[in-house]
Amino acid sequence: MKLNRGRHLVSIPGPSVIPDRVLNAMHRAMPNIYEGALVELSQNVLAELPSIARTTGPGFVAIANGHGAWDMALSNTLSRGDKVLVLESGRFALGWGDQATMMGLDVEVLHATPRRAVDPAAVEDRLRTDHAHDIKAVLVVQVDTASAVWNDIAAIREAIDAAGHPALYMVDCIASLACMPYEMDAWGVDVTVGGSQKGLMVPPGLGFTWASDKALAAHRTADLRSSYWDWTKRLSGASHYWRYAGTPPISHLYALREALDMIAEEGMEKIWTRHRVFADAVRAAVTAWSTPGALEFNITEPSERSDSVTTILTGSIDAKRLRAICDGQAGLTLGIGLGDEFEGKAFRIGHMGHLNPPMVLGTLATTEAALIAMDAPLDGSGATAAAQVIAQHLDP
Amino acid sequence: MKLNRGRHLVSIPGPSVIPDRVLNAMHRAMPNIYEGALVELSQNVLAELPSIARTTGPGFVAIANGHGAWDMALSNTLSRGDKVLVLESGRFALGWGDQATMMGLDVEVLHATPRRAVDPAAVEDRLRTDHAHDIKAVLVVQVDTASAVWNDIAAIREAIDAAGHPALYMVDCIASLACMPYEMDAWGVDVTVGGSQKGLMVPPGLGFTWASDKALAAHRTADLRSSYWDWTKRLSGASHYWRYAGTPPISHLYALREALDMIAEEGMEKIWTRHRVFADAVRAAVTAWSTPGALEFNITEPSERSDSVTTILTGSIDAKRLRAICDGQAGLTLGIGLGDEFEGKAFRIGHMGHLNPPMVLGTLATTEAALIAMDAPLDGSGATAAAQVIAQHLDP
Amino acid sequence: MKLNRGRHLVSIPGPSVIPDRVLNAMHRAMPNIYEGALVELSQNVLAELPSIARTTGPGFVAIANGHGAWDMALSNTLSRGDKVLVLESGRFALGWGDQATMMGLDVEVLHATPRRAVDPAAVEDRLRTDHAHDIKAVLVVQVDTASAVWNDIAAIREAIDAAGHPALYMVDCIASLACMPYEMDAWGVDVTVGGSQKGLMVPPGLGFTWASDKALAAHRTADLRSSYWDWTKRLSGASHYWRYAGTPPISHLYALREALDMIAEEGMEKIWTRHRVFADAVRAAVTAWSTPGALEFNITEPSERSDSVTTILTGSIDAKRLRAICDGQAGLTLGIGLGDEFEGKAFRIGHMGHLNPPMVLGTLATTEAALIAMDAPLDGSGATAAAQVIAQHLDP
Amino acid sequence: MKLNRGRHLVSIPGPSVIPDRVLNAMHRAMPNIYEGALVELSQNVLAELPSIARTTGPGFVAIANGHGAWDMALSNTLSRGDKVLVLESGRFALGWGDQATMMGLDVEVLHATPRRAVDPAAVEDRLRTDHAHDIKAVLVVQVDTASAVWNDIAAIREAIDAAGHPALYMVDCIASLACMPYEMDAWGVDVTVGGSQKGLMVPPGLGFTWASDKALAAHRTADLRSSYWDWTKRLSGASHYWRYAGTPPISHLYALREALDMIAEEGMEKIWTRHRVFADAVRAAVTAWSTPGALEFNITEPSERSDSVTTILTGSIDAKRLRAICDGQAGLTLGIGLGDEFEGKAFRIGHMGHLNPPMVLGTLATTEAALIAMDAPLDGSGATAAAQVIAQHLDP
Repeated sequence: MKLNRGRHLVSIPGPSVIPDRVLNAMHRAMPNIYEGALVELSQNVLAELPSIARTTGPGFVAIANGHGAWDMALSNTLSRGDKVLVLESGRFALGWGDQATMMGLDVEVLHATPRRAVDPAAVEDRLRTDHAHDIKAVLVVQVDTASAVWNDIAAIREAIDAAGHPALYMVDCIASLACMPYEMDAWGVDVTVGGSQKGLMVPPGLGFTWASDKALAAHRTADLRSSYWDWTKRLSGASHYWRYAGTPPISHLYALREALDMIAEEGMEKIWTRHRVFADAVRAAVTAWSTPGALEFNITEPSERSDSVTTILTGSIDAKRLRAICDGQAGLTLGIGLGDEFEGKAFRIGHMGHLNPPMVLGTLATTEAALIAMDAPLDGSGATAAAQVIAQHLDP
Repeated sequence: MKLNRGRHLVSIPGPSVIPDRVLNAMHRAMPNIYEGALVELSQNVLAELPSIARTTGPGFVAIANGHGAWDMALSNTLSRGDKVLVLESGRFALGWGDQATMMGLDVEVLHATPRRAVDPAAVEDRLRTDHAHDIKAVLVVQVDTASAVWNDIAAIREAIDAAGHPALYMVDCIASLACMPYEMDAWGVDVTVGGSQKGLMVPPGLGFTWASDKALAAHRTADLRSSYWDWTKRLSGASHYWRYAGTPPISHLYALREALDMIAEEGMEKIWTRHRVFADAVRAAVTAWSTPGALEFNITEPSERSDSVTTILTGSIDAKRLRAICDGQAGLTLGIGLGDEFEGKAFRIGHMGHLNPPMVLGTLATTEAALIAMDAPLDGSGATAAAQVIAQHLDP
Repeated sequence: MKLNRGRHLVSIPGPSVIPDRVLNAMHRAMPNIYEGALVELSQNVLAELPSIARTTGPGFVAIANGHGAWDMALSNTLSRGDKVLVLESGRFALGWGDQATMMGLDVEVLHATPRRAVDPAAVEDRLRTDHAHDIKAVLVVQVDTASAVWNDIAAIREAIDAAGHPALYMVDCIASLACMPYEMDAWGVDVTVGGSQKGLMVPPGLGFTWASDKALAAHRTADLRSSYWDWTKRLSGASHYWRYAGTPPISHLYALREALDMIAEEGMEKIWTRHRVFADAVRAAVTAWSTPGALEFNITEPSERSDSVTTILTGSIDAKRLRAICDGQAGLTLGIGLGDEFEGKAFRIGHMGHLNPPMVLGTLATTEAALIAMDAPLDGSGATAAAQVIAQHLDP
Repeated sequence: MKLNRGRHLVSIPGPSVIPDRVLNAMHRAMPNIYEGALVELSQNVLAELPSIARTTGPGFVAIANGHGAWDMALSNTLSRGDKVLVLESGRFALGWGDQATMMGLDVEVLHATPRRAVDPAAVEDRLRTDHAHDIKAVLVVQVDTASAVWNDIAAIREAIDAAGHPALYMVDCIASLACMPYEMDAWGVDVTVGGSQKGLMVPPGLGFTWASDKALAAHRTADLRSSYWDWTKRLSGASHYWRYAGTPPISHLYALREALDMIAEEGMEKIWTRHRVFADAVRAAVTAWSTPGALEFNITEPSERSDSVTTILTGSIDAKRLRAICDGQAGLTLGIGLGDEFEGKAFRIGHMGHLNPPMVLGTLATTEAALIAMDAPLDGSGATAAAQVIAQHLDP
């Protein structure tokens, strides 16, 4: 029966729910683009952007999605034929590696244990064998949106240092920025990659990179540079126009301005804590539901689970049908299992960005209703378990 | 801890959640008001309005809230000094009676058993004693937003008929229209009163009346008529301008047009069924929570509980604190206990209009989390019980 | 040929052009209506409202249009059978008088010279003859939206005083508030009536009244009071709910808040001056166009022309065709000639509220293009004449 | 004096005025991105895109601005070291050439006569000398947004054919698409480049390319291909996701869908005609204003002036001051003179996209008012001259 009126809830791992304030901010006529309020807003946005990645280095805003930002990161720092080491932990680092290959880079993949995070010790081992320092960059994601694994970026930095290796350290934080702790400078990251449509609460359309001094130094000799992505042009200050390699993304700048205000109002540490609480609630629900042969976590090691997305294997339960019931009858869109190994055998819950208890608990209780309707074997009530987690964080 | 980011959920018995489509429809520049699209839209709205109340008689759109619509109903049909019988069943019929008194009508209240609906037999008894037919109108609400009682409008009609009484039968459906079954013509109602901000999913700002032939006949001799509310002027067809007794409510007409489209797309009967399902879910949760001395239904008789709002007495639990936790920490606004007898001792959940399982279950599970945080005595998990009700209505 | 893409420009005397900021402010979900931000916003709006009418007395916000506000003014201060003197100067004071008659008041009309303003001396003469002080109220409009006349409210006050008459002085400022100077207290006005959709830049849906101490004293004994309009209830402070006689006009309160901010940012005196400049530009254009037998001002005396609306008689030119060309081919809606005497023989230009030179000159030059297309006799170029007026007010 | 309230009018050559319908369409929550309505909308948009460029070949939507689309065009069809011939006629073809150089292409510029269009005969001459067919592509803009020149794309095609040269013919239509006639297939263009923010009436954020069969053939061997821009990936149909090389530009797709609807409703030929009429009006105004030593057209040859933008040299008049008066006092933003040769010595009027007579005439009359205020020497009234042009196209 179709019960799906009301505000449809999209609980996928990006695009996340865009705040009404952000949608409203976008609803504006085109302004004077040469001088005045738009230029000032843009400069303020660029000035505040480093704080999001916790760096003192520059941040760059490309009109692009995350895959564009990947190209931006690589093309600004590397040269044709350079070797890069991709740390596998799901799909996305591999995808980044595919783009690197297409650009003419020499890509090596360090494979991971299935359903686990990158092992820092394995990284150290590999880099120790690269005596010639052929590897110019190490690529990793903090959170893999497909597997929902969380990689320990600080620990991998320690592994690189332990190996005494000079490679650039590039981290894709698209699915974790403004969701989970990230300290670009403190953790010695050289290039951070981000996107607008997840923790940053802005519709897809902006890709971000941040560069360390080391990355900027590498940039000077990179021969893959191209005009649209080029950091130098964007930093030149010649005119506002070049900050975005042409006409600026006006609507998205208005959106980003509003989102940065919201982030500042809540405070980054509180945002991280809130995501932790909601992730704990989701995990309590999945734990309550888990039954041999039916639902279980994709990531086996609890400490390696992301606070922004959870991938749930469905065993004997038809994940496609589950999603179809939620979407078509109950007003809830769950994330698909992404990739061949997950198709029809998993679903994902995004818990990133603009969220509160009714949204998280509404997602879980509705999923539970659909599971009950499907007569799925459930060990217990996830909705209740999740409500109990939330309760622990409410001041009576 | 403040977890209240995300789309704040307002689960109060009106204003209900306005659909994004409706908000978007309102976001328009002012049009040509003399001819063309706006005039056509307005005429279509007026033409479709009777179907909402299930009548063939005319419907009137006043720029007003529900209390304005009350005055519109009375002033168009009655004369100074006329006697009206108000059927108590909570606060709102009494409030309507207060307005009648102020207009110069002679108001008699038929009192009800506390926490119960109007008793049709009592209505019949009272009317039988009115041999002179002094009572010119009987006023009742279908759903009382404060007590959450539902009155059986068809049964009261039968009672009036059984008494052979000619009084006009006026029903306030503000809190029930497009939520619960209502059949103005089939049930012999003479004046129906409605408002925009509940089942009709439009922001507050429009009050509606619908008139039967009998009401229109009474109108001809009514001496309380005033220009702003006057049906005759609005029906005159002299010009579009007079349909709204002056400048039309342009933004709200755009909103209403969109809302009527949404109602037509879903179908009125399906809307009623959906509300029944959600009300059952809410009632399952309250039943699960209910404990002596703590939470319980205000309306003691299950068959008299509204499908659009539920009032929950909180006993030893501080209802104000419960609401404050939900609103200030969890992103959920619950309805207050309305009136002295309920203040701090009750809360209400609105379940009317633009709703789906994530919203209903999110409301209930968040309320449960707050109750747990307060260490409230709960007999069981309302979130789970409600999810089970929803599950019964999902096609696997 | 249809050239009417682009942002359609509606230059009618209300609804005026709603600022994008105001439309955006309305685009919000329904809030907690019991406490918090909405209640504070509402209280601030009510606290600032007196400044708009330049009074220290209370202002009232009714969910209504201007005709509702007329009823609000009358019903709160008068009793059945009271005599009121209506000062004719177009259509609207007469319309107010019609509503007064329907409410049971005894209406006398003081007729005016056609195409002229109210003559204060005639008012004084009439009041001097009312030795018994039967006349309880004098009703006048500051600007008549149909004739485009401007009445000298201060001079009429002086006339009333010269006659030594105690009648309440009620002024409809719907078409002039926040357009032309108005000083309720300084000019000794007892009841001011306003609407949202003209100088206040908010969509139709709010009617305003402001009351002097003398009006509030009269209110105590008025027997036409009705609940929906009642000032006492609205002032009682019992709860926020009663400020609006029921559910508040949430979307319109958001709109009004934004509009009041815009008014404060510009400053009321500067708003008046800006309207004067634009009115001078419009009048320069009409003067340039004027030709015997063709276009001419409706109001013959220049000092009696409104700064917010201009009514132009079209003589041999078909006003309906002119409007149709502008509306259907050129993206401009002009106001109709309102009333039988004007139908097809006049058009109106609204120049009120949210306006700038491109809008005013765009209106005039487009009208001129349509007139040229119709081969209308024009004495000169109105567009050029108007641009010259604007030029005088730009700092080089 | 600040007269700049009202809807600020931005008459610059892009971003153009975004229709309210388009802004409204963007104001939507994020949808299910895996299946359903968004995917269908996206496919429909991609299916209709070829009709905009008048081709049967595929169109590609990149999340990028126009400069990104330049890279997309080059990288998909050329290999490192390939020679390209850039046909100068202002700034933008040169800028495209600069990006080509940075990508590793060998760029030769065919210089043009100042203030004139590309001379097809010169193109033919140059190509005839390229016996070895080293030149792999010819790059030209249809309209140069800086100089406001219009190049005859069909004639240049004939010149290439006359030389018997096989180079790819690439045309940047960013400032002319959906403004001026363009026939990709009929004119034998191989790659068309477009952007969202001009004739297409969508905020900046989308870059477009269209490819002929010949371009697709060249694509197969191009070695500059990179993942983000790659046509093959986007055409693969593997999944919707790859159509946009990752997360789709959801808000902009909604916008583009609405804009394509508006274009279809009006009809492409009528759009072209409307632009011609407005351009004639602007040119009539500039002609009326023109005085030796003061205002004059930048493009000396009338047949080479664009219908979407006009660049006006200001001679002794301070163009910066003119713009400042318009922007800061009169609510009108004019385009800057772009480039060193124009800075402070020219201004531009954009007349592209969502326009009607009040906007065009409002722009011109307001500019005239500012010129008068500056005591600029003017030969006549541009506002009047423009109104007369418009008048010729209105059906009386």
